[in-house]
Amino acid sequence: MSKKNAFYAQSGGVTAVINASACGLLETARQHADKIGKVFAGHNGIVGALMEDLIDTSVESDAAIAALKYTPGGAFGSCRYKLKSLEEHQAEYERIIDVFRMHHIGYFFYNGGNDSQDTTQKISAMSQQMGYPLICIGIPKTIDNDLVMTDSCPGFGSAAKYIATSIREGALDVATMAATSTKVFIMEVMGRNAGWLAAAGGLAAEQDGDAPHIILFPEIPYNEVQLFEKINACIAEYGHCAIIVAEGIRNIAQHHVIESSNTDAFGHHRLGGTGHVIAETIKRNLDFKCHYAVCNYLQRSARHLASQVDLDHAYAVGQTAIERALAGETDIMLTIERVQQSPYRWEVGTTPLTTVANFTKELPRHFISEDGYHITQACRDYMLPLIQGEAYPPYKNGMPDYRPNLKKVKVAKKMAMDFKVKL
Amino acid sequence: MSKKNAFYAQSGGVTAVINASACGLLETARQHADKIGKVFAGHNGIVGALMEDLIDTSVESDAAIAALKYTPGGAFGSCRYKLKSLEEHQAEYERIIDVFRMHHIGYFFYNGGNDSQDTTQKISAMSQQMGYPLICIGIPKTIDNDLVMTDSCPGFGSAAKYIATSIREGALDVATMAATSTKVFIMEVMGRNAGWLAAAGGLAAEQDGDAPHIILFPEIPYNEVQLFEKINACIAEYGHCAIIVAEGIRNIAQHHVIESSNTDAFGHHRLGGTGHVIAETIKRNLDFKCHYAVCNYLQRSARHLASQVDLDHAYAVGQTAIERALAGETDIMLTIERVQQSPYRWEVGTTPLTTVANFTKELPRHFISEDGYHITQACRDYMLPLIQGEAYPPYKNGMPDYRPNLKKVKVAKKMAMDFKVKL
Repeated sequence: MSKKNAFYAQSGGVTAVINASACGLLETARQHADKIGKVFAGHNGIVGALMEDLIDTSVESDAAIAALKYTPGGAFGSCRYKLKSLEEHQAEYERIIDVFRMHHIGYFFYNGGNDSQDTTQKISAMSQQMGYPLICIGIPKTIDNDLVMTDSCPGFGSAAKYIATSIREGALDVATMAATSTKVFIMEVMGRNAGWLAAAGGLAAEQDGDAPHIILFPEIPYNEVQLFEKINACIAEYGHCAIIVAEGIRNIAQHHVIESSNTDAFGHHRLGGTGHVIAETIKRNLDFKCHYAVCNYLQRSARHLASQVDLDHAYAVGQTAIERALAGETDIMLTIERVQQSPYRWEVGTTPLTTVANFTKELPRHFISEDGYHITQACRDYMLPLIQGEAYPPYKNGMPDYRPNLKKVKVAKKMAMDFKVKL
Repeated sequence: MSKKNAFYAQSGGVTAVINASACGLLETARQHADKIGKVFAGHNGIVGALMEDLIDTSVESDAAIAALKYTPGGAFGSCRYKLKSLEEHQAEYERIIDVFRMHHIGYFFYNGGNDSQDTTQKISAMSQQMGYPLICIGIPKTIDNDLVMTDSCPGFGSAAKYIATSIREGALDVATMAATSTKVFIMEVMGRNAGWLAAAGGLAAEQDGDAPHIILFPEIPYNEVQLFEKINACIAEYGHCAIIVAEGIRNIAQHHVIESSNTDAFGHHRLGGTGHVIAETIKRNLDFKCHYAVCNYLQRSARHLASQVDLDHAYAVGQTAIERALAGETDIMLTIERVQQSPYRWEVGTTPLTTVANFTKELPRHFISEDGYHITQACRDYMLPLIQGEAYPPYKNGMPDYRPNLKKVKVAKKMAMDFKVKL
């Protein structure tokens, strides 16, 4: 039996632990060197396949691979590049299969969110159409936690831990200053349409009076009058007010607070700045001094505060991807299954790609409190297991040591022609 | 000898380790219970003295006091309240001395920045004028690192560690996305007039190509043309660009990028938003997609990432304040003295309050690279020792456990009249 090589790539926005999935996949592939050939990493996601821009991971040292577990960002580069429909862009799909054929690739592993699972599914369809045998497996990843069919998404737990910790810390600051100065602290988190990350901030509130006092979700259009009443009541009772604001919040007129004319490669609006807008609104209407922080990339790359459970999930889906592929399974995405709630127990499962591609898991309404401004116990019960344990990275010179020292040797090109990719 | 009580209060913006100074002071006072009475903490800084709003720390458990070492924010409340000159507001000073006399207070410890050292000095002057014996000692604290006569300020090291770590992490994110999406990541840090915190971000750059690639300091008015050239060159070479922006940066016309009509109690302009402005400028002029984060309060309350050296400094100045006070020293501020550069050795020293009150230590020009957009080796040599060691807090439920469970029992009021404080 001739061993087939594998293609692995990272797609979409990164997480603090996506490289742990790479680590799990690469270490497991090495353990099965009798059955699987080299793993080629796509440089910048699927673009690496299109452009025949492949990194030969077989020349990396075991130590470099192991260090991926502690390194945020995407070690091989990611992309925001969505393949169009098979009909529209057949040339792209054919190109990918041609590249795979040329490099003897029999396994396709794509590590990403729902758009990426869609890509995986389409590539599988094209390989079948072209009669090229290809095992296609999706590896879940997204801080947004919006993939369906999996209990949680690797990457979310660490972002959640960062957000809950940060609002707790920032709120202790404003509580200190409130008597004579700033009374409101606002922290803006990611979340275009789903409030998973905003909800995670709610975990910090364990007792009466704990921050955050108010959460603005994308799902619940907020009412200014109601919001102002809540802030006033909070300051009257606790002296200060800490607020989590998702980047995609809407006012009752159903418009995003910040409309942006920019759209990303997937056609989504690029938002940002809601923290600033809410701060200005509060200052103008209530005359309270406000401070605001914008977490932005920090919430998805804060490997220094990663959740051990999340890290374990991320590693396991990479590891299991290889195991399932070698068992001949294809057209699946790995999932995290919650076997037991308390104490939390989980295992890795699978689901057909067709069940996940392009679907979005919404934050359940019963995770949001009845008034729409906080989370419920059901939400806490669901999320708390995901942020457990501190998976600290090694430190050097007082800073996290994020230098896996990958050689990133490129695979020699074999295709007769280059392929133009419009980035 | 009748034992005198002590007054301790926290002033100005807090740090991740200001409560460690409180811890050092309170634990040391307890060790000298034969010589010093109770320590009363001012609720909300000096305002607590004016309003006779005192917290009796003697009823707190040893465990609660010990937990202060791990808790960010200011445990007893801080204030932005500047006492006017002795001539203008004699009544305020007389009130403070009257409150101290009534509560048998013979020691005044004020934990703050340069404005607070000025307050300490004035209270000392008034106590002498009124013939009331009072030992007055300033305990340094500020993330801004702008106190003179001390090698560094407790609070700065932890903020520096947070900033250097965060820009390293955020930059790994943008590096991953840059091929097909965002190419510039901007992180806004505090710093109205001095670039100490912005410079701290520079520590993350250890090798050629490391982030941050550009630092905008308040001290160096930036030139848009030059800035754009630098960004273009950086992206041409590394594919992405990570930029640290201080909140008080100026363009070459010497205006703050963001002029705010708001001033705080000390008459300083309140700035913020430079990260957003620079992002918009880059997008408009260079057409690169930008992301920006605003650290704001997170950088001064991120106890989860505190520097062990900084924590040790903070504890030591609290501890030494008691020791020096009991030795009869007064009108001094504690200082951190660098005894040896490598390996770093330090001890606590003192300086007369008159030498520090209202002075500001500027970031030396030779700490900024010749072109004005990065730091020098001299700056690295100075700062690196301050961010060493990870002083992790305890965790509970996956989040830092910041609940010292202080009882905060108020001292019974003894003054015949209340005092109106205009907050």
